[in-house]
Amino acid sequence: MAIKKVLVIGAVAAGTKTAAKLKRENPDIDVTVVTKDEYISYAGCGLPYYVGGVIEEKRELVVKTPEDFKLITGVDIFTKHEAVDIDGENKIVKVKVLETGEIKDFEYDSLVIATGASPFVPPIEGRDLSGVFTLRKVEDALQIRELVESGKVKNAVVIGGGFIGLETAENLFERGINVSLVELAPHILPGFDEEIALYAQNYMQEKGINIYTSEKAIAIKGKTEVEKVITDKRELEADLVIMSVGVRPNVDIAKKLGVEIGTTGAIKVNEYMETNIKDVYAVGDCAETTNLITGKPAWYPMGSTANKMGRVVGININDNKKDSLKGVLGTTIVKLFGLNAAKTGLSEKAAKKEGYNVVSVIVPGNDKAHYYPGYRMIITKLIADKDTHKVLGAQIIGEGVVDKPIDIIATAITLGAKVEDLEKLDLAYAPPFSMAMSTTIVAANVLLNKIKNKVETISPTELKERLNEVVVLDVRDEASHMISSIPGSINIFSEELYMKADELDKEKETVLVCKVGKNAYLSYLQLKEMGFKNVKILEGGMTAYPYEKE
Amino acid sequence: MAIKKVLVIGAVAAGTKTAAKLKRENPDIDVTVVTKDEYISYAGCGLPYYVGGVIEEKRELVVKTPEDFKLITGVDIFTKHEAVDIDGENKIVKVKVLETGEIKDFEYDSLVIATGASPFVPPIEGRDLSGVFTLRKVEDALQIRELVESGKVKNAVVIGGGFIGLETAENLFERGINVSLVELAPHILPGFDEEIALYAQNYMQEKGINIYTSEKAIAIKGKTEVEKVITDKRELEADLVIMSVGVRPNVDIAKKLGVEIGTTGAIKVNEYMETNIKDVYAVGDCAETTNLITGKPAWYPMGSTANKMGRVVGININDNKKDSLKGVLGTTIVKLFGLNAAKTGLSEKAAKKEGYNVVSVIVPGNDKAHYYPGYRMIITKLIADKDTHKVLGAQIIGEGVVDKPIDIIATAITLGAKVEDLEKLDLAYAPPFSMAMSTTIVAANVLLNKIKNKVETISPTELKERLNEVVVLDVRDEASHMISSIPGSINIFSEELYMKADELDKEKETVLVCKVGKNAYLSYLQLKEMGFKNVKILEGGMTAYPYEKE
Ligand SMILES: Cc1cc2nc3c(=O)[nH]c(=O)nc-3n(C[C@H](O)[C@H](O)[C@H](O)COP(=O)(O)OP(=O)(O)OC[C@H]3O[C@@H](n4cnc5c(N)ncnc54)[C@H](O)[C@@H]3O)c2cc1C
Ligand SMILES: Cc1cc2nc3c(=O)[nH]c(=O)nc-3n(C[C@H](O)[C@H](O)[C@H](O)COP(=O)(O)OP(=O)(O)OC[C@H]3O[C@@H](n4cnc5c(N)ncnc54)[C@H](O)[C@@H]3O)c2cc1C
Ligand SMILES: CC(C)(COP(=O)(O)OP(=O)(O)OC[C@H]1O[C@@H](n2cnc3c(N)ncnc32)[C@H](O)[C@@H]1OP(=O)(O)O)[C@@H](O)C(=O)NCCC(=O)NCCS
Ligand SMILES: CC(C)(COP(=O)(O)OP(=O)(O)OC[C@H]1O[C@@H](n2cnc3c(N)ncnc32)[C@H](O)[C@@H]1OP(=O)(O)O)[C@@H](O)C(=O)NCCC(=O)NCCS
Ligand SMILES: [Ca+2]
Ligand SMILES: [Ca+2]
Repeated sequence: MAIKKVLVIGAVAAGTKTAAKLKRENPDIDVTVVTKDEYISYAGCGLPYYVGGVIEEKRELVVKTPEDFKLITGVDIFTKHEAVDIDGENKIVKVKVLETGEIKDFEYDSLVIATGASPFVPPIEGRDLSGVFTLRKVEDALQIRELVESGKVKNAVVIGGGFIGLETAENLFERGINVSLVELAPHILPGFDEEIALYAQNYMQEKGINIYTSEKAIAIKGKTEVEKVITDKRELEADLVIMSVGVRPNVDIAKKLGVEIGTTGAIKVNEYMETNIKDVYAVGDCAETTNLITGKPAWYPMGSTANKMGRVVGININDNKKDSLKGVLGTTIVKLFGLNAAKTGLSEKAAKKEGYNVVSVIVPGNDKAHYYPGYRMIITKLIADKDTHKVLGAQIIGEGVVDKPIDIIATAITLGAKVEDLEKLDLAYAPPFSMAMSTTIVAANVLLNKIKNKVETISPTELKERLNEVVVLDVRDEASHMISSIPGSINIFSEELYMKADELDKEKETVLVCKVGKNAYLSYLQLKEMGFKNVKILEGGMTAYPYEKE
Repeated sequence: MAIKKVLVIGAVAAGTKTAAKLKRENPDIDVTVVTKDEYISYAGCGLPYYVGGVIEEKRELVVKTPEDFKLITGVDIFTKHEAVDIDGENKIVKVKVLETGEIKDFEYDSLVIATGASPFVPPIEGRDLSGVFTLRKVEDALQIRELVESGKVKNAVVIGGGFIGLETAENLFERGINVSLVELAPHILPGFDEEIALYAQNYMQEKGINIYTSEKAIAIKGKTEVEKVITDKRELEADLVIMSVGVRPNVDIAKKLGVEIGTTGAIKVNEYMETNIKDVYAVGDCAETTNLITGKPAWYPMGSTANKMGRVVGININDNKKDSLKGVLGTTIVKLFGLNAAKTGLSEKAAKKEGYNVVSVIVPGNDKAHYYPGYRMIITKLIADKDTHKVLGAQIIGEGVVDKPIDIIATAITLGAKVEDLEKLDLAYAPPFSMAMSTTIVAANVLLNKIKNKVETISPTELKERLNEVVVLDVRDEASHMISSIPGSINIFSEELYMKADELDKEKETVLVCKVGKNAYLSYLQLKEMGFKNVKILEGGMTAYPYEKE
């Protein structure tokens, strides 16, 4: 049966992309989009920056108005129309016109569910008070910004230390507000490994955000307006509360049709974005996808993926299985003041959980030539499978450029690269753009050194846990050691090591510490030559050690 | 026979890297490096920036002094020692001590040739005048800077429009000097396709560099100091001349040993960096490598590659064939004032020459979200094989970030990616770093549209050549068309196309022009629906059209 009518539910990224692409492919098909919202086609990702005033005008957030969208694409669009029920047998969606309450029938030959995700709001006392917000829709941002600009907000509490919470915390802080952030987990940036997440956490704290981790918000207090947040450890004054503990896929309407929900809680689809029901597709934040590394179902509600999924369905609806999205890596990135943090693939923790024989290293380096003005440091954590040498993931953090190396590694992982492949990449080099041996290549060198037992290393987290068991030998110069060092460490300057190493016990487990790991490595080779049996270097040196120093 | 003594000739990037790595792998081997120069381990790539004063101090250019290098690595190093002959049978290199003239014997078990490359100086009258320089060594930069800082240089002429010539032109210009650049080829940046190179050329010209292409320098005039450069078209006043018409591999000493020279003129090596002679390796700018796409010998004298080659030999000398460099892509990048230009893989021209069934597109886009402050435009030219869909190359230019997408594409090509793979990459997206659909993904979308005949395009170069044969239909608004347009183009605003298209001849070849190509694409689909037979869009629109406008 020829497809003549397509109905799309949802009109932010995935829904609009599907509809626009479908019309380009098939001008003859009637395409209709319904959304319960007033705004369509807006940049959810820009909302924190609108709150902060970095983005000045509302119209910059909204890529297309319904009128423009219709004019350009030929798609019929109905805003403030909520899909409330579906009659799958007769292919009819029941749509409630929100302004009148009327229920209308929308027929379809193919249906695209692009209902997205909504913030999860835990059932916590006081969550309905004035001044308590989530941040997902344009209206949220408008209201928060209005409140902020009224000058009434002295203290804000952000509940949740994921990307959205952190971006919002930064933007509120930049408005001169005292910002506290409460996170239930032991560190912010869940999904990142501890050392990297703590690096970001220390940075945010130094910038002036009060961060409380391993702490639970248990109530929000106030009369009509919010006054404070009560946690299991303290009370925090608050004129504004942002709840950002995560989002959940909007799958109610899908369930009504009998569409299968996957293990992640989002709609199960195959690589063609087909659900279990014929002629019904799901795209964007409401849909599951596959983790390209593990092959398992995964749910990464990202704008980048929503657009890709939408385009696939726009092609496939009338041209069966012509395009596909095999999966994603969970690549993410966030700017936190001057710090950039990015991740792709599996974290060390996740890779271990999946049963890989995990090997990883942490390697700091510069994003440009060390003599080129404006260069900045970045820390690369590179994760691989010791058996196959396949790259499994990376996390990169620092004030320098991190999006480039994370995208290089994401590309490499997608195409099945081994660490050996990374090491030999012919990347663009000139002093304003990179070091002659780029950070990614050096990280791959060091990881292979470790894999081939040319060096033994210890991660910051492991060292912190085993501080009492090992000799920590700091090989930086005396002045550096005096300023800041690992608790209990002894100090022999690397240049004097050949003379003074005899004072040390060659049998005892010794961890060498320097600024970034490179001098420790050279000292490691020296001590090995001298017959030391059990030496290791601290990965990333003092630079990447996020724990207590003295 | 066990390797006990290794001799390395040359001590900039490849030689020092080999020696340092070799000593780390084998502390027991005696490693000696000889170089005829005073400086070792310096950043050739930084020299133009030292001339410009961007790099202030000489010591920033020189990564390691001979003393430091020896101390850290344990390598014996002899500066101002020139290898003048080799007795291969007895494994002895004859070395001339330049300060005394004495000839000394250096024995080796393994020999590493890392003699690099030298500027080619055409046999042109006046090339020995004072004030005429090449730029390769630290001394060159010191002397040029001294002359510049003396205030005597009002006019400078750079001969050669490759990377080094352009970087030097910029740096001299920033010193307040009137700079002219003479290039024999029809455009600067040889190796780039014409449209991209001309984009850079227009930019440099607007910044104030006088560029003369298709023009030959035939003499340099002056008494003892340079006074002018004579070309086949004009005379240019000059107090300083920089000759940068290219470099040639230093292979004299290799030839004396009977080492095989490849078709590129550089030393032939296999992926282990072995020459045809046992125990003799060659690395860095004096050595050939393989183009990973064509599988053919290639010579890309780059610092990034020199370091990789050196490290491979450092590993292999005592651990046969353990490491390898299979080849490179010829990835390069240059900053020209605020413009960045990069290239990887084959150009369209080169790919055609190699016999590929080439398909390419030019797609402008933003490096960040369009609403995020500071975003900039970049133009991507993506080149693929129409038969296999394999990505063959890319060139990216613009004031925005180009190193990231070029490295993504370089990584993709290395791992054998098709355009379909590029299109689906899970790249890091947040507004400060990228668009939701990054430029690389959009370029891949458009290229696949072209491959699948969903759109027909014409390149800027082809349009310029066929201007008289086609109808050029500019679909921008009237004001934009008035300000600047393609000569002879007619104007119908895209929003009025559905009304006014009837005025046009449906059979005539019609090229649609807009700002970047996107509106032209939408208009293309519209005209196709209306029965137009022979429509095309101008790739990259007015943005990427580098030819005469009216
Ligand atoms: C603050 C913030 C920052 C973000 N930052 C990033 C980032 O940096 N990078 C990134 O990749 N992503 C980011 N995202 C996520 C990105 O915005 C989403 O992935 C994207 O919006 C998903 O698009 P979507 O169309 O699938 O769903 P949504 O944007 O959720 O849109 C779904 C639409 O469907 C409507 N709808 C739902 N049910 C019905 C119904 N029954 N009837 C009618 N309409 C219905 C909803 O009201 C909504 O309008 C961010 C999101 C937020 C909120
Ligand atoms: C201005 C400029 C800008 C550049 N920009 C970039 C860039 O942006 N990116 C990039 O990747 N590369 C760039 N390069 C290239 C980079 O500098 C070279 O690739 C790199 O220096 C090669 O190192 P090498 O050790 O192989 O050779 P070389 O640097 O040429 O060193 C060879 C050494 O061997 C010595 N030698 C030669 N013959 C003998 C002999 N018989 N006896 C003793 N000693 C001998 C030479 O005197 C020299 O000191 C640039 C180069 C220049 C000059
Ligand atoms: C913009 C939006 C409505 C999609 O509509 P769209 O018409 O597909 O718009 P785009 O600009 O992405 O692409 C238009 C077409 O032009 C093509 N195109 C883009 N630049 C081009 C160029 N220079 N030359 C030729 N074609 C070009 C694209 O490939 C695409 O065509 P295709 O899909 O048929 O290949 C939808 O993505 C949206 O609403 N986005 C905003 C919300 C959002 O993404 N939020 C999440 C992140 S915060
Ligand atoms: C610096 C130079 C002498 C090479 O010497 P080197 O000792 O190999 O120096 P590097 O700093 O590159 O590397 C040192 C080692 O530390 C390792 N290392 C680097 N950072 C590390 C870290 N954080 N933790 C552990 N190990 C680290 C590297 O992997 C390398 O070891 P490996 O090769 O055994 O794996 C040589 O590259 C040179 O002279 N460069 C300047 C000139 C030049 O490159 N010019 C061309 C471009 S302009
Ligand atoms: Ca069709
Ligand atoms: Ca050995």
